[in-house]
Amino acid sequence: MNKYITGVPLEKSYRLINHGPTILVSARHEGVENVMAAAWACGLDFSPPKLTVVIDKKAKTRELMEKSGLFVIQVPTVVQAPMTLQLGTETLAQQPDKLARAGVKLFEFEGFDLPFVEGCSAWLACRLIPEPHNQQTYDLYIGEIIGAWADSRVFKDGHWLFETAAPELRSLHYVAGGHFYAIGEEIIVGESQKS
Amino acid sequence: MNKYITGVPLEKSYRLINHGPTILVSARHEGVENVMAAAWACGLDFSPPKLTVVIDKKAKTRELMEKSGLFVIQVPTVVQAPMTLQLGTETLAQQPDKLARAGVKLFEFEGFDLPFVEGCSAWLACRLIPEPHNQQTYDLYIGEIIGAWADSRVFKDGHWLFETAAPELRSLHYVAGGHFYAIGEEIIVGESQKS
Repeated sequence: MNKYITGVPLEKSYRLINHGPTILVSARHEGVENVMAAAWACGLDFSPPKLTVVIDKKAKTRELMEKSGLFVIQVPTVVQAPMTLQLGTETLAQQPDKLARAGVKLFEFEGFDLPFVEGCSAWLACRLIPEPHNQQTYDLYIGEIIGAWADSRVFKDGHWLFETAAPELRSLHYVAGGHFYAIGEEIIVGESQKS
Repeated sequence: MNKYITGVPLEKSYRLINHGPTILVSARHEGVENVMAAAWACGLDFSPPKLTVVIDKKAKTRELMEKSGLFVIQVPTVVQAPMTLQLGTETLAQQPDKLARAGVKLFEFEGFDLPFVEGCSAWLACRLIPEPHNQQTYDLYIGEIIGAWADSRVFKDGHWLFETAAPELRSLHYVAGGHFYAIGEEIIVGESQKS
């Protein structure tokens, strides 16, 4: 595990996705692991922290989330853009070696039986809050964030450091057709306390 | 109305928020209008296009959305960062002149009885899909996109043009405490078709 990875207090964990990055969703059940890319993940509540994520019915990750009741939302970086696109395009059903093909390496945080993707900038371990109507009608999943970590080179003391960190650690923001944007310049309004 | 504003086909309207910008929500009912900022808005479906947005119980905009069954999600630009922060901080209940104080000017698109905010880069007119359980339990609202427009200087033919447009037209991505990022550099993976 990368020595820069540091725990993030749960009350500030929403900030890891508040700026709207494209994310990777991962889950595991009975030895089967998968990782997929998703653009539609979003904060839902501060305390306890919750988020939403939209997962298509054909995704194997969806089945693993439902069976295990757990999943990870993680924030890939600019250097992971090709991997992110591939994880959003291929399916485990059609490419059983999908993770190896995309170059995904997994690791674990102690106390969490979940697959975390190496090289990301932030990780949110989530407990699925079952909402069958949302899941069936809208493919919409709600998770409570139960663990949060970030690479302290790019997120520290509750704030992203994109303006000073290496550009390859910036987050990705997907549009369509292989077309992403990296996050850009910092804008401070008023006397930012950065609390 | 700004002469650069152009209609966006509904099937590509999700792309206006797919990169995770902080947005402004506006609504109107019986002559009362309000605009608020929200970081938690997200795509939900392609066809018919839908989105989610999280709106706190104390927001006047929430009441206007519920009563009219309509709302607008719009994408503010870098030059609107102070206005966006102010619209996310002040409430109509406490500051009846909130919109004037923030410098908001409203306009309309023909056929839509909704207040649109001038100077944004994109606008999504939405019809509320009532989901009382989500609204009460999670402050989560679902809208079907029924109209979409963008400033063609920064969004054209289904794609953002941040890499060539004026920097002040870039989208805002909020973290916390007055701390935003602008969207940044383009990243193309593979042979992007930009379809």
